[in-house]
Amino acid sequence: MDAIGRERLTLATYEKPRPAADEALVRVGAVSLNHRDKMVIESGRGLSLAYPFTPGSDMAGTIVERGEQVQGFAEGDRVISVFTPDWIDGRRPGNARTPAYRTLGGFYPGVLSEYVAMPAAWLVHAPRTLDDAQASTLPCAGLTAWFALVERACVKAGDRVLIPGTGGVALFGLLIAKMSGAEVIVATQPEKGERALALGADHWVDRSRDDWREAVYALTDEEGVDHVLDVVGGENLGVSVQLAAVGGHVCQIGALAGFDIASPAMPLMLKDVTIHGIGTGSRRALERFVRAVDQARLEPVIEARYTFAELPQALDHLERRPFGKIVIDVPGD
Amino acid sequence: MDAIGRERLTLATYEKPRPAADEALVRVGAVSLNHRDKMVIESGRGLSLAYPFTPGSDMAGTIVERGEQVQGFAEGDRVISVFTPDWIDGRRPGNARTPAYRTLGGFYPGVLSEYVAMPAAWLVHAPRTLDDAQASTLPCAGLTAWFALVERACVKAGDRVLIPGTGGVALFGLLIAKMSGAEVIVATQPEKGERALALGADHWVDRSRDDWREAVYALTDEEGVDHVLDVVGGENLGVSVQLAAVGGHVCQIGALAGFDIASPAMPLMLKDVTIHGIGTGSRRALERFVRAVDQARLEPVIEARYTFAELPQALDHLERRPFGKIVIDVPGD
Amino acid sequence: MDAIGRERLTLATYEKPRPAADEALVRVGAVSLNHRDKMVIESGRGLSLAYPFTPGSDMAGTIVERGEQVQGFAEGDRVISVFTPDWIDGRRPGNARTPAYRTLGGFYPGVLSEYVAMPAAWLVHAPRTLDDAQASTLPCAGLTAWFALVERACVKAGDRVLIPGTGGVALFGLLIAKMSGAEVIVATQPEKGERALALGADHWVDRSRDDWREAVYALTDEEGVDHVLDVVGGENLGVSVQLAAVGGHVCQIGALAGFDIASPAMPLMLKDVTIHGIGTGSRRALERFVRAVDQARLEPVIEARYTFAELPQALDHLERRPFGKIVIDVPGD
Amino acid sequence: MDAIGRERLTLATYEKPRPAADEALVRVGAVSLNHRDKMVIESGRGLSLAYPFTPGSDMAGTIVERGEQVQGFAEGDRVISVFTPDWIDGRRPGNARTPAYRTLGGFYPGVLSEYVAMPAAWLVHAPRTLDDAQASTLPCAGLTAWFALVERACVKAGDRVLIPGTGGVALFGLLIAKMSGAEVIVATQPEKGERALALGADHWVDRSRDDWREAVYALTDEEGVDHVLDVVGGENLGVSVQLAAVGGHVCQIGALAGFDIASPAMPLMLKDVTIHGIGTGSRRALERFVRAVDQARLEPVIEARYTFAELPQALDHLERRPFGKIVIDVPGD
Repeated sequence: MDAIGRERLTLATYEKPRPAADEALVRVGAVSLNHRDKMVIESGRGLSLAYPFTPGSDMAGTIVERGEQVQGFAEGDRVISVFTPDWIDGRRPGNARTPAYRTLGGFYPGVLSEYVAMPAAWLVHAPRTLDDAQASTLPCAGLTAWFALVERACVKAGDRVLIPGTGGVALFGLLIAKMSGAEVIVATQPEKGERALALGADHWVDRSRDDWREAVYALTDEEGVDHVLDVVGGENLGVSVQLAAVGGHVCQIGALAGFDIASPAMPLMLKDVTIHGIGTGSRRALERFVRAVDQARLEPVIEARYTFAELPQALDHLERRPFGKIVIDVPGD
Repeated sequence: MDAIGRERLTLATYEKPRPAADEALVRVGAVSLNHRDKMVIESGRGLSLAYPFTPGSDMAGTIVERGEQVQGFAEGDRVISVFTPDWIDGRRPGNARTPAYRTLGGFYPGVLSEYVAMPAAWLVHAPRTLDDAQASTLPCAGLTAWFALVERACVKAGDRVLIPGTGGVALFGLLIAKMSGAEVIVATQPEKGERALALGADHWVDRSRDDWREAVYALTDEEGVDHVLDVVGGENLGVSVQLAAVGGHVCQIGALAGFDIASPAMPLMLKDVTIHGIGTGSRRALERFVRAVDQARLEPVIEARYTFAELPQALDHLERRPFGKIVIDVPGD
Repeated sequence: MDAIGRERLTLATYEKPRPAADEALVRVGAVSLNHRDKMVIESGRGLSLAYPFTPGSDMAGTIVERGEQVQGFAEGDRVISVFTPDWIDGRRPGNARTPAYRTLGGFYPGVLSEYVAMPAAWLVHAPRTLDDAQASTLPCAGLTAWFALVERACVKAGDRVLIPGTGGVALFGLLIAKMSGAEVIVATQPEKGERALALGADHWVDRSRDDWREAVYALTDEEGVDHVLDVVGGENLGVSVQLAAVGGHVCQIGALAGFDIASPAMPLMLKDVTIHGIGTGSRRALERFVRAVDQARLEPVIEARYTFAELPQALDHLERRPFGKIVIDVPGD
Repeated sequence: MDAIGRERLTLATYEKPRPAADEALVRVGAVSLNHRDKMVIESGRGLSLAYPFTPGSDMAGTIVERGEQVQGFAEGDRVISVFTPDWIDGRRPGNARTPAYRTLGGFYPGVLSEYVAMPAAWLVHAPRTLDDAQASTLPCAGLTAWFALVERACVKAGDRVLIPGTGGVALFGLLIAKMSGAEVIVATQPEKGERALALGADHWVDRSRDDWREAVYALTDEEGVDHVLDVVGGENLGVSVQLAAVGGHVCQIGALAGFDIASPAMPLMLKDVTIHGIGTGSRRALERFVRAVDQARLEPVIEARYTFAELPQALDHLERRPFGKIVIDVPGD
């Protein structure tokens, strides 16, 4: 936390803010962390932040007060935050030169706070089947996997889905593919493969072996996979394209392996492959995802929970490639 | 023509073949050349060819005889060949490891011949508004641009389309985008820009200038283009992604700049861009394209026509980046 | 005008309203009439209107003042109104029991006025290639045809489109289909058929003859039409389904022949036909349409223009099945 | 069985036919019955049948011999038949006037026989997780529900699906919707509602009550259902449209209530509803469905099994609105 430093970071609001006419005041119950939070805290990530700056984009909590114009929400309603609140439905904002990346805990103030006041339109009802810690993982990691597999690549029952990882987005991908009736292959390290099976994956292949691609060809009778949730990026995009079935979809989500992607052109062209650039999803997509979570009883995977005071340890944990999400429990009154 | 050599190449059939029961015998009128033909002739392109080998994939001609089981075609019907005859409609053949690239003049014998006998199902009725030379340009170059813009990327009226080139596929892209009501920007060398305007392009930008991307941003009020028909490939894919509008489509078609594509990941992800790998299209798609050609009176652009005997010169011409297609007129009886 | 009566109708604002912070004040230049306006004026159409009530939903004009929070519009900008302003993009509002039909000149106050103040978000930039009279025809009739053919049924070059009428929506359908590269058949009365050809239609058939359906089969070699813009409704839906091609689309738009539609089931099922219920479109769809209008130089068809004082005659004209739209010119200062 | 009569019906082949070069000879294990079979047997259903006529379209069995050109199948492979074998993928055959309804046991000879020889291309590998009786239910009833919900209406996790019946197609719809993560409401008679819940339905409503539609509104918080698998037809289409959510899909499948469908126009138009005419699906769709069946361990619902000799009783059973499918077990050697 060099770049921002504790003194410039506000992790808690000691006085309740008052909601404006179109705002709701939320008592935060839990905040889920993303790598992005760590980058923002440590380097500012190129953003022009206003100090004191509150980090964090993904929270679940309860509305305790609301402005007089707020519709669709009542006091006591459990809610989650929207990661990119300006993106309502359909086409997202922005233009060719300047993509719109106005997120909470970045362009907008964050949610790692006891109370947050924000426009009610930036909130979505929490799933009734999840507690605050679980629900807090949906706005970024969960929605990204949902939007990629369901709303962009249109996964359907019987499709084969390759998930090359076991982080937050990856495990949501596993669960979402399974609730859609798909067959899931997770490519990971050995110790995590068995855990993926326990979550419902049909197969795992050892990504530390040179021949892991052959294992995928073998598992699919050379047909390949209909979808790859590529959370790795970089040169791995080319691997995804090679493993894709004819007419297959590669969702480009991650940049773990670098901010430049590369692929051989011929399998992309001769197999009619489609690559979808994915950057979370819209408000309405989050509402649709919440309904699916409740319907299919999807249970987000949380690797560890920390207290508010343990934020530094929680951020450190993010570096150790957790199996699922890291959540901060926000203390009650 | 080192690798094959004239003695191993058959450019003409001196005896009419007899069509089998499901075949039609076609008197070839014209054959359109592709770079691929040159590669096959010069290097075999990795294919295991049967000698004597007849090159060429794209022909127009007239049915002069047909087998007894042939339906849907009569003697005297004008026809064109299908580039990848095994791909009927919907998903193309092949699997993840081995894409299906069974084309005429490659896996299958070619059409640079006075007569060809082939299954009638490998033929499509020629557009009634085009002569043989024009019609012969549709099966590969024309269909590729049609399938990319219309059947994969779903171009619609008012969309902005960037065409970074003026070869065969590129100029078909220009004409197809215009007949679909789109706005077309061609990125090319100065001497070709004015010719593109004459064909209906709305704008051209000078691709030899370092700031040509800025010119595209300026022409689109920073909105970018809804579609790029990327016939260049390689690192140019990244340029296409940067110039793409939010929600835009990049059709990856060409490998002029190399067989590996690369792009920055962030604009792909944050602008919800979709990349479509394109490798021609299906038989039914060719039928749909023919109907559109007749309806919109699309006129393919032919840079030069050669006689049968001038094949070497015609292949040389392909190297000089022609503006449109090169066609071989096949001599009549 | 029995139900409302002149005394309860306000056709002009004699004092300029002041725009609120998020509003723009528009000097109205022209208002285009729809049958719905006549119904609202004559019967209230079941709406609970506030009196004095201003009718009219579709206007073009110029912004003369704007609230301090308005972004994206400047004074002097030419604009058109959005017919259903709550529908932004993607899924429209409303639920299963109560469709959302909150239109200007109905649920919301109308625009048949010298000045209107409304949220700037309810406005879209007017096409730069159209004058106010022409531009005023886009928000309802134009957008309906656009949304149906382009955004729901995805018309493409070479498709066949049947337009059974020559009213406002029908003629927009004709022009939009043509600018998309489609082949258009208009089914109408003889005197209007030639006028349709002059606008670009490829064929017309005499809808007053019993055998007009046979004429459509004949024109399409029995293939049928890929799209029907069904502005008639009622039993005519069944005719549309019978004339539809395999995999064809019927856009159900009109209720001229009654508020109940009917069709034989077998051709619907055995031809994989899709019926799209159409009720105008969203704000973003109107923006996309405006861009296409400018790009393709689409010229709306206006049958007659009336002055503000001639509103009763203009409403009477609506009853006489005009060929295109009826527009009211709103007097300047 | 008046119209055809036993003497003109062949239910068994006493001599094994020899397969032609492109054919496979199948030892039939089970045949699933459809209402259509009863209509064909009793009335010929308007078809020009060749006698002796073998009825039945849906079989599962084992390949016992194959022609020399057959690829992709080996002796011993378990297979099912394709209901409309000419429809490969993409757009189905036929034209506007004459839909293509060339099915086995209708236009083509049927499968209610100990052995059938047919082109190998008319066969699809049976799911490895189902026995012959179960597998025989897929080609018509199963594929119809799959094609409707998955390939036309694109059901996704969290969607609400209304199934107004418990016959063969309806129960496949229930199972397919559930394996896709959807919420299912079955509208049926009381005694069948509980059985539907046991199969995984989330709710059932009593279709014999006048207020059953209100029950659906209540179960969905007035939102309505995203999909209706309308196996009833007739006036029920209007009910489906009224219960559909904004942007919802109605799959028109059945004609139990008559061969003419009707609906009020306004909810169709104002809720952006799409009606899909459904008539089974293609060969490739059947292959995709088989993969989904294996992956999700879908178990078809069989109400009763009969022997070959009990065909008359089995056909009578079809009249008694069975809960699921009726299957004929074909005797082994």
